[in-house]
Amino acid sequence: MRALEDDFDRPKEECGVVGFWTHPEMKAEVARMAFFSLYALQHRGQESAGMAVSDGNLVTMHKGMGLVSQVFDETAMTNLKGHFGIGHNRYSTTGDSHVRNAQPYHVSTLHGPLSVAHNGNVTNAAALRKALMERGVGLMSTSDTEVITQYLAAPVPFKDRTAPRWEQRLAQLLDVAEGAYSLVVMTRDCLYAMRDPLGMRPLCLGRLKNRDGKVMGWMVASESSALLTLGAKHLREVGPGEIIRIDKNGITTVKPPVAEKSTAMCIFEHVYFARPDSKIEGQTVQVVRQRMGTQLAKEAPAEADVVFGVPDSSLPSAMAYAEATGLPQTEGLIKNRYIGRTFIEPTQEMRENKVRLKFNALRENLEGKRVVMIDDSIVRGTTMYQLVRLVREAGKAKEVHVRIASPPINNPCYMGVDLASREHLMAAQMDVDAMCKAIGADSLAFLSPEGLHKAVRGDEPKPCGHCDACFTGNYPVDVSFFEESDAKRQFEL
Amino acid sequence: MRALEDDFDRPKEECGVVGFWTHPEMKAEVARMAFFSLYALQHRGQESAGMAVSDGNLVTMHKGMGLVSQVFDETAMTNLKGHFGIGHNRYSTTGDSHVRNAQPYHVSTLHGPLSVAHNGNVTNAAALRKALMERGVGLMSTSDTEVITQYLAAPVPFKDRTAPRWEQRLAQLLDVAEGAYSLVVMTRDCLYAMRDPLGMRPLCLGRLKNRDGKVMGWMVASESSALLTLGAKHLREVGPGEIIRIDKNGITTVKPPVAEKSTAMCIFEHVYFARPDSKIEGQTVQVVRQRMGTQLAKEAPAEADVVFGVPDSSLPSAMAYAEATGLPQTEGLIKNRYIGRTFIEPTQEMRENKVRLKFNALRENLEGKRVVMIDDSIVRGTTMYQLVRLVREAGKAKEVHVRIASPPINNPCYMGVDLASREHLMAAQMDVDAMCKAIGADSLAFLSPEGLHKAVRGDEPKPCGHCDACFTGNYPVDVSFFEESDAKRQFEL
Amino acid sequence: MRALEDDFDRPKEECGVVGFWTHPEMKAEVARMAFFSLYALQHRGQESAGMAVSDGNLVTMHKGMGLVSQVFDETAMTNLKGHFGIGHNRYSTTGDSHVRNAQPYHVSTLHGPLSVAHNGNVTNAAALRKALMERGVGLMSTSDTEVITQYLAAPVPFKDRTAPRWEQRLAQLLDVAEGAYSLVVMTRDCLYAMRDPLGMRPLCLGRLKNRDGKVMGWMVASESSALLTLGAKHLREVGPGEIIRIDKNGITTVKPPVAEKSTAMCIFEHVYFARPDSKIEGQTVQVVRQRMGTQLAKEAPAEADVVFGVPDSSLPSAMAYAEATGLPQTEGLIKNRYIGRTFIEPTQEMRENKVRLKFNALRENLEGKRVVMIDDSIVRGTTMYQLVRLVREAGKAKEVHVRIASPPINNPCYMGVDLASREHLMAAQMDVDAMCKAIGADSLAFLSPEGLHKAVRGDEPKPCGHCDACFTGNYPVDVSFFEESDAKRQFEL
Amino acid sequence: MRALEDDFDRPKEECGVVGFWTHPEMKAEVARMAFFSLYALQHRGQESAGMAVSDGNLVTMHKGMGLVSQVFDETAMTNLKGHFGIGHNRYSTTGDSHVRNAQPYHVSTLHGPLSVAHNGNVTNAAALRKALMERGVGLMSTSDTEVITQYLAAPVPFKDRTAPRWEQRLAQLLDVAEGAYSLVVMTRDCLYAMRDPLGMRPLCLGRLKNRDGKVMGWMVASESSALLTLGAKHLREVGPGEIIRIDKNGITTVKPPVAEKSTAMCIFEHVYFARPDSKIEGQTVQVVRQRMGTQLAKEAPAEADVVFGVPDSSLPSAMAYAEATGLPQTEGLIKNRYIGRTFIEPTQEMRENKVRLKFNALRENLEGKRVVMIDDSIVRGTTMYQLVRLVREAGKAKEVHVRIASPPINNPCYMGVDLASREHLMAAQMDVDAMCKAIGADSLAFLSPEGLHKAVRGDEPKPCGHCDACFTGNYPVDVSFFEESDAKRQFEL
Repeated sequence: MRALEDDFDRPKEECGVVGFWTHPEMKAEVARMAFFSLYALQHRGQESAGMAVSDGNLVTMHKGMGLVSQVFDETAMTNLKGHFGIGHNRYSTTGDSHVRNAQPYHVSTLHGPLSVAHNGNVTNAAALRKALMERGVGLMSTSDTEVITQYLAAPVPFKDRTAPRWEQRLAQLLDVAEGAYSLVVMTRDCLYAMRDPLGMRPLCLGRLKNRDGKVMGWMVASESSALLTLGAKHLREVGPGEIIRIDKNGITTVKPPVAEKSTAMCIFEHVYFARPDSKIEGQTVQVVRQRMGTQLAKEAPAEADVVFGVPDSSLPSAMAYAEATGLPQTEGLIKNRYIGRTFIEPTQEMRENKVRLKFNALRENLEGKRVVMIDDSIVRGTTMYQLVRLVREAGKAKEVHVRIASPPINNPCYMGVDLASREHLMAAQMDVDAMCKAIGADSLAFLSPEGLHKAVRGDEPKPCGHCDACFTGNYPVDVSFFEESDAKRQFEL
Repeated sequence: MRALEDDFDRPKEECGVVGFWTHPEMKAEVARMAFFSLYALQHRGQESAGMAVSDGNLVTMHKGMGLVSQVFDETAMTNLKGHFGIGHNRYSTTGDSHVRNAQPYHVSTLHGPLSVAHNGNVTNAAALRKALMERGVGLMSTSDTEVITQYLAAPVPFKDRTAPRWEQRLAQLLDVAEGAYSLVVMTRDCLYAMRDPLGMRPLCLGRLKNRDGKVMGWMVASESSALLTLGAKHLREVGPGEIIRIDKNGITTVKPPVAEKSTAMCIFEHVYFARPDSKIEGQTVQVVRQRMGTQLAKEAPAEADVVFGVPDSSLPSAMAYAEATGLPQTEGLIKNRYIGRTFIEPTQEMRENKVRLKFNALRENLEGKRVVMIDDSIVRGTTMYQLVRLVREAGKAKEVHVRIASPPINNPCYMGVDLASREHLMAAQMDVDAMCKAIGADSLAFLSPEGLHKAVRGDEPKPCGHCDACFTGNYPVDVSFFEESDAKRQFEL
Repeated sequence: MRALEDDFDRPKEECGVVGFWTHPEMKAEVARMAFFSLYALQHRGQESAGMAVSDGNLVTMHKGMGLVSQVFDETAMTNLKGHFGIGHNRYSTTGDSHVRNAQPYHVSTLHGPLSVAHNGNVTNAAALRKALMERGVGLMSTSDTEVITQYLAAPVPFKDRTAPRWEQRLAQLLDVAEGAYSLVVMTRDCLYAMRDPLGMRPLCLGRLKNRDGKVMGWMVASESSALLTLGAKHLREVGPGEIIRIDKNGITTVKPPVAEKSTAMCIFEHVYFARPDSKIEGQTVQVVRQRMGTQLAKEAPAEADVVFGVPDSSLPSAMAYAEATGLPQTEGLIKNRYIGRTFIEPTQEMRENKVRLKFNALRENLEGKRVVMIDDSIVRGTTMYQLVRLVREAGKAKEVHVRIASPPINNPCYMGVDLASREHLMAAQMDVDAMCKAIGADSLAFLSPEGLHKAVRGDEPKPCGHCDACFTGNYPVDVSFFEESDAKRQFEL
Repeated sequence: MRALEDDFDRPKEECGVVGFWTHPEMKAEVARMAFFSLYALQHRGQESAGMAVSDGNLVTMHKGMGLVSQVFDETAMTNLKGHFGIGHNRYSTTGDSHVRNAQPYHVSTLHGPLSVAHNGNVTNAAALRKALMERGVGLMSTSDTEVITQYLAAPVPFKDRTAPRWEQRLAQLLDVAEGAYSLVVMTRDCLYAMRDPLGMRPLCLGRLKNRDGKVMGWMVASESSALLTLGAKHLREVGPGEIIRIDKNGITTVKPPVAEKSTAMCIFEHVYFARPDSKIEGQTVQVVRQRMGTQLAKEAPAEADVVFGVPDSSLPSAMAYAEATGLPQTEGLIKNRYIGRTFIEPTQEMRENKVRLKFNALRENLEGKRVVMIDDSIVRGTTMYQLVRLVREAGKAKEVHVRIASPPINNPCYMGVDLASREHLMAAQMDVDAMCKAIGADSLAFLSPEGLHKAVRGDEPKPCGHCDACFTGNYPVDVSFFEESDAKRQFEL
């Protein structure tokens, strides 16, 4: 069952990861820092949360279903002792959400403890699963993180089997695992951070200082906003295909990143996922979104009286659109900000106008006007249909011109984002004119793929490439497995 | 212990109430409607929630600690059978939060079941408690709602003691209870809605229709946004001192409202509490807040480059301020929207910069600029001090001009709002210049009380008066009891 | 829904109560002592448990649904600070079990805090409820304990209303409340213990010493086994109609007990309810039960090969029966001792032989034999029917002679014991011959009422009378209210 | 922390297992049957419980901490759909009890789902762990059941790798796994039951019929009392080293049992663990215990007036001892039967006489008498010391003669029983005379090892051997690993 606040008509991110390594003598409260960094990344996954912390001898783990603030209490925090650790927020794409799929994954290996937190989707997980099972590994869950963990647990076929060789194994994983994966890995005495060679999911690196300005250690996190929350300095991003080790010797690049031009960072991080105050590829997301609005104004101006955005993610684009078009900006929709995840079914009456449970229209700002409503994307189109009706009926707008700050989504994502299957993607089923009619708008326009890329690259064009498969169908990895079959069923117990 | 998200430097509302009466033959799902209306009023109280529903014979009740979405699950909903009912969200001002203080209160009386949900604070509750105890009523909690309930349970001293006479009792209550109270009361066969004679807390009335346009019944709610959420038509407000009965005969005014000019509606509902899409005193709150921004621009313009509001409540004022001054509006602070109530203590390092757990500054929009930061109010000043520092240090703003869309708060509230005691109110301790210095701003200005009243009254000046005691010290009721002593201790068990 | 282990074919006791008063300077851990005494009285009620503890200023309360060990954890214990307190175990006779009916009840009154724990059933509670409601008290629950508490909360109509006069109120309660009630009452500075004038439910008094032999204080408890558990000295029973005060001046008899010959102690405490190691009316229950077995052997010997009791309550009678008849004693039924309350429904196959979920027959000890099966009572007869079948089919007994160590139960109890309504009492529906046939036994005999009284009075005949209404229909109080109507429905919310 | 009711001075069993296979067309409620069979085996483990059920396609699993009745509710039962399944009760010997150690273990393998429930202790688990980790399997827990599961998940090195070959793998496991293990294994379409070659832990086989007498399927369980509870027919025991398959073709012996004379069934199942109504090695445990009492009477009579057993496990021995010696039997100690597991710490006063929380002495039956107190075993001796004191001081016995129905325990168990380490075993530290003095008894005697074996073998001597290492030190497997080191620490994460 879908929870109401699941924003079912929005793309869903799947995870946020964090990792910490501090000097033992600094007595930093690693678990507490991990807690607040997961708290800052709550938007990347609300289904489960977890943490594994080590003092070099003993690994303590705590995970559970729910928000970070629900999973951890002071008793749990007190038990999580150690000077390094990793953490994870999870959003489940499958209906089968269960605590056994919660992360981090932790196993004992020949060379000591191994804990893994993962953001992304390994597209050849089915093949890797099969390989592992052929080697005789029984798999407890349907998670690709367990696949990664067991893959890493296997000894590297080198002569000297006494050395852990975690770094060789991580390098091997880069060779065999396809798709998107940003990993934070904890072993007996150090922390590794790594991104897939295409750099599809973000991961960045920060330095922790204490109140006296002394370096306490380092942290990695999916987004830099988590660094800001802890007052850590944002050093840089972990590069695509890069493996970084953090231990008592500081930060070491175990394997340098691949060339940036061959990368395929998910462009939707800019469009919707990331917090606006995060810096991705050197740019603050808020600014990128403002540029999207400016570009949208250029590509698709509207004959209208007023502009407003659908709260909250499209507000930067709306602000910039208004500024660029010279139209006054207003607030047209009010969102219930205190809404929490609920599984209570609405009544029949409410179901037909479900959008009201989340939004109300501000008639005073809209009545009798020709309005431009900016949103960041259209997935299934059901919410947009109800929003247009709300703005027209309750808001009394004269005309409703919908402008979307990204191109039409007409392809599913197989790299860790829960969009929808192709038959549920509105743009995969009809052209823009038909969509306009279907949502009941007076006009509808999207930002062009070129316009989006331009906005993302910004003034100082970034060399790195982006995955825009959801808009273009140009998948950077082989997705035939997914396209040919409903592969998930094969994973089920 | 204070929870982190308690927004401890903001005024706290204490409650939201709802009531429903539907025709039995319509088979309306009253509990489900009550759930979603409480959900829409979640901002008025996050500590506990409850509901009592009746089918005319049996009253079923469910209440618990936490958010509406945590207190109710489908099992609870299934048990809540009936065609009329009342509901409640509670925010506790005392540290002693306990489920025995959760509402509604329900008792059996000589004349059948009686359930009460209450928003406000009865300022002479101590005297009423004493009177009840002298009559021999033992009180189970420290709540003034229990006092109201037991007061209503007492038979009216009329000859005919067989008639319930609920209406006489409610009228009596209006005579003896001082302070703020918006009540929804459920008896064996009808629903009553009532506001204190000063009309301090809001309460409004709506009509429910089903999909075929047939009238299903009526609802009352603290705010009209709850009506919009359910698609109910907003009929009007319950008047100050008015008693309304809703039953199978429809809506009846049992006692007409007092003259509006003698009322004292809490002006802070406009400033901060109410949802912007609620209509209070005939005006949408968003619009009132926009007028506050316009007026603030007139009274306190600033030599600056850019304007932004502290999310979320001050955004309408900021938008209007920008428009009125001609300064460009921007987003200067990003708020972590997914933050939930947490009781985990931050580390020492974080405590000093606690505001970062909630906000980050957007350097790109602020760097090198003279910024105007709009907020709705200053209570203790601690958050504002940290925000100014954040905007200056992380945002790299050149100058920070703080503008507050309401007057300085220099008096505590005793009518159901948790501001702070006088010694913790910044404006009660120093003048504006000293405050400016204390928060580290380049300039600081407040909206004048006159300006606020003007903004609230709008273009078509409203005859009704407002309580602005927090700004002016002009309390509409006798508060000497509170001022002379720390009265709450007397209530403790 | 009935829980499986509810022993639905046994009489159910309703409550256990305890009270503690210790010298503050002894720093006794009153909450911990109350916990373990409730733990020792767990057999008297498994539905809810609670405790209220006072340090003379602040009363702390904790109660919840479930076993004592489930309701309290170390966090709860740590919060329960004080040097005196009361506690309660509850078994609910109504289907409507709810935490709002859990005890103790606690209210604030004109003269300070008042907490009440009650064992029994006030037979004129409906009349007292009505009187309270006429006085204007709204009642929150269906519990007669709330009625008692609110009755006590009322000021005594004496001139000097400043004095608490708890003692007058308790004395008044003795005058007006009919039925069974053993009460422990806590006020601001002392503890009261009191029994109804008929002395229907037990209550005894003990002295607490510390390791050095110094008197720590006193305790009261439903049964002396709770005293033994804490190592307290059993001083005596609280007499019928006696009011005892315990405070810093020690133990004071506020009102002396009524003459013992007019009392009506529930004889079923001896037959089934009390722990065998408790002393009631000066006699250890185990010994009384052994005498019941001896007497039963005299009245109803059997031509048989072996004797066994249905575990556990009938084992003393079985042992004595065997000894008196000279027949060898054996174990014929094994009970699953680790069984916990479960609400899981058995399958259709299991339902027909539900007794197997609790008992297995020991064929080795029974096969081919003529067996005497001793039980303490027959209520509905359903369990006995299944037991006889089990002993015959699985145990392969040749003949099954059932002997019951008490007379046939043919009247309901209205004084706080959940037997069954008259139409469900097997002995109320047929004579012993028909019962014998119905349960499928080869012979069936009961102890005579005279025999039971003789066994209970023992060698040194006790002057006190007993209530044996369940056997004889001679109710010591007016029960016409219950007999005329299904009165409980009137109490429902 | 030890729970109070942990009976810390008794040996602890570690697990109970069950398995069910029913014909799909019979629509048997397998989960419900598994629930009640685990309920019947609750005495074998109270820490966690779990179940995995399959409909041939989908495996559903539910497990949790606590008693069976706490882990499962109707919602869980409803989700557990299928016609075959396995279940488990666990008692943890290590302090580190955690839900990740709860059983059954379930993994996906190359050949489909694999679920395992295990009772026992694999003594070479450390070596097998190492072998698995060398093969590259990361292990999530410290449980030997995970080791067994992953061992079974590995493909057998046969040519045809497409066949599951579960049977070869199970046979291999018999070759490599040392120590005690009774297993129930569920694959995609069948159920396996297997015991270690020494047959150390029990496991038996039953046939299920429905109400019409039609065969519904089969079940396996640790003890036959679970079969009786469900009304299943006890067919036979699974033999030592035997592998049985149950599927749509009925019961097939995959591998026949080893010769009985080489087996080493744990003799403590007879002495203490098993329910008295279970049949083990063809004998009802109750009867074996009675024989132990008879034999003890022969070996160690006592000059005394009366005999009683410490409830509950020693009652059969006590009864037989009394009969054999001609001394009258009585009840000397009353046990609090309603006691539940509690973690509340007693007060200082109680700690010194902790035995009172569980037992009271019956002075009436003991005073002035020379008593024989029968118990089944002495582990640490602390409880026995307190019991003797209780019988003497509270019971006023003149002399206390302790007779133990098994030999002195002077060796730890490494095969799945939690006795105590050698330095805590009283009999390992001193001789019987010293023990007698230490416990304060007037005399002390134990059953001889020969006498115990004789009692266990019964009238028709059983060929099978028994492990009596705890009495004799003759371990049937290599335990040098455990004796040399505190091996468990090596397993820790």
